[in-house]
Amino acid sequence: MTSTTPSPVLIVGSMAFDDLTLPTATVTDVVGGAATYAALATSLFAPARVVAVVGTDFPEPVLQDLQHRGIDTAGVCRAQGRTFRWAGRYSDDLSSRVTLDTQLNVFADFRPVLPPAYRDSAFLLLANIHPTLQLEVLDQVTVARLVATDTMNFWIEGERPALEAVLKRTHTLVINDEELRQLAEQHNLRKAAAAALKLGPQRLIVKRGEYGAMLFDEHGIFFTPPYPLDRELDPTGAGDTFAGALLGYLAQADDLSPRTVRRALLTAATVASFNVEDIGTRRLQSLTRPEVEHRLGLLEAITRVDP
Amino acid sequence: MTSTTPSPVLIVGSMAFDDLTLPTATVTDVVGGAATYAALATSLFAPARVVAVVGTDFPEPVLQDLQHRGIDTAGVCRAQGRTFRWAGRYSDDLSSRVTLDTQLNVFADFRPVLPPAYRDSAFLLLANIHPTLQLEVLDQVTVARLVATDTMNFWIEGERPALEAVLKRTHTLVINDEELRQLAEQHNLRKAAAAALKLGPQRLIVKRGEYGAMLFDEHGIFFTPPYPLDRELDPTGAGDTFAGALLGYLAQADDLSPRTVRRALLTAATVASFNVEDIGTRRLQSLTRPEVEHRLGLLEAITRVDP
Repeated sequence: MTSTTPSPVLIVGSMAFDDLTLPTATVTDVVGGAATYAALATSLFAPARVVAVVGTDFPEPVLQDLQHRGIDTAGVCRAQGRTFRWAGRYSDDLSSRVTLDTQLNVFADFRPVLPPAYRDSAFLLLANIHPTLQLEVLDQVTVARLVATDTMNFWIEGERPALEAVLKRTHTLVINDEELRQLAEQHNLRKAAAAALKLGPQRLIVKRGEYGAMLFDEHGIFFTPPYPLDRELDPTGAGDTFAGALLGYLAQADDLSPRTVRRALLTAATVASFNVEDIGTRRLQSLTRPEVEHRLGLLEAITRVDP
Repeated sequence: MTSTTPSPVLIVGSMAFDDLTLPTATVTDVVGGAATYAALATSLFAPARVVAVVGTDFPEPVLQDLQHRGIDTAGVCRAQGRTFRWAGRYSDDLSSRVTLDTQLNVFADFRPVLPPAYRDSAFLLLANIHPTLQLEVLDQVTVARLVATDTMNFWIEGERPALEAVLKRTHTLVINDEELRQLAEQHNLRKAAAAALKLGPQRLIVKRGEYGAMLFDEHGIFFTPPYPLDRELDPTGAGDTFAGALLGYLAQADDLSPRTVRRALLTAATVASFNVEDIGTRRLQSLTRPEVEHRLGLLEAITRVDP
């Protein structure tokens, strides 16, 4: 433990209301969005700064709760209109989902404007938004030790030139295996990873949900097993939780050595596993560092040949 | 390395001809079957004994080749008629397959009769055959330190009482995740594992193909990552290869300590990964122990935080 305050992590992404049809429950108006999940996860380790947009319907107490957790919401713009909404239905085994509805609302006109105090952020998470907006953020950040980028099939398909410009300025690409295969136009994961790294990032992290996560960097391949949960309620936001915890851990460690990056992956997988245990951000809200440490120990043990 | 010859592993299962429609090739009359794959994998580590049936169309040189690898084929019965045949088609990404045709042929009347010399086998692999036949084998084996059992959806659905009788006499159940979920009538893997262990086995090994393998035993959970291949041609027999290598490793080690069992899983995953690199048993036929050792080192490294 160092006595200095960790560097803050700047997170740019969506804040949203989600309607979720889960095998065990149907819930509406659940506060979600990539930036929300990521910021909550980051805040376990380091201060977070959020750039996002919400509508007039977004409850002020939710923002206040984030602030109480050391999350700076000065970059959250409240615009006239309704907040971004997403509705999805999960399969009975939670392994797949379909989007039932997307309403961009105030997100349609979102232009990320960083408060001046955010411009010196050393750790930056570009959550899944239009790559042109990701580029606008990059233009406003003067020094960034670590730029981590997420994206989605929609931009890989339709906005490739802008996305490739983002990747050239990305240190760590954090996407899921389907997105990687689409980006690389290659099914074999190892070949796809090599192709993705040629687009700019020094480091690729592949999220595989219930199958764990993989890191590809100049030191080789690292594999994080999944934590075997006995309670799985809602995987929404698990990938964003993973990314937020990853950056929070790295910001707190203030180190990007191969060992620290690998420990960050294990920690991120651990925090993401908690997120699945309850609906929306509920589990993240009650999650404590000792709980994370305890489960991290269990996760590390499952690849150890001496039980 | 010990100077004594390892205990032989007795393998009971199918020998077959496979017709495979692969993304890269369509091949016919490929020598396959669970016992063939398993015996080749076992023979890297320990002598194998095979109990199976082939028809008059099965080439004698294939049996001779097995014999040259230290595989005892005295238990392979040659019956009048054609050898068991299976035809399957794989999806473009090899992640799924459909059975196009199954012809039991001589396998329809197969009754496993152990040569007297086989009855003292200490390591027994009951590959996927009718559970009633698995019971017949168990009745003929006088002392077995390790009984490992595989099965399939068909028997789980239609032959549950016989299968449960087998499981009561099984030390190590080796099945894939879908079979586990079906057997336990429970989707959550951790809960399903607990339910499966209540049926008798001391140890459950869950094969998850390109996602690795998991062990559940009294010492907890152990996870073997998949070896990230850059060449994937044909997954046929990978699960049988895994089981054969597992038992071969354990027989050679002559030890069932938690650490040895865990190292056996890593070794089995390594050998199985080679099998996918070429069609049928071709890669297993050229595979050497130094190649296995080398890749095992790489596989172990990918869960190590110090690269």
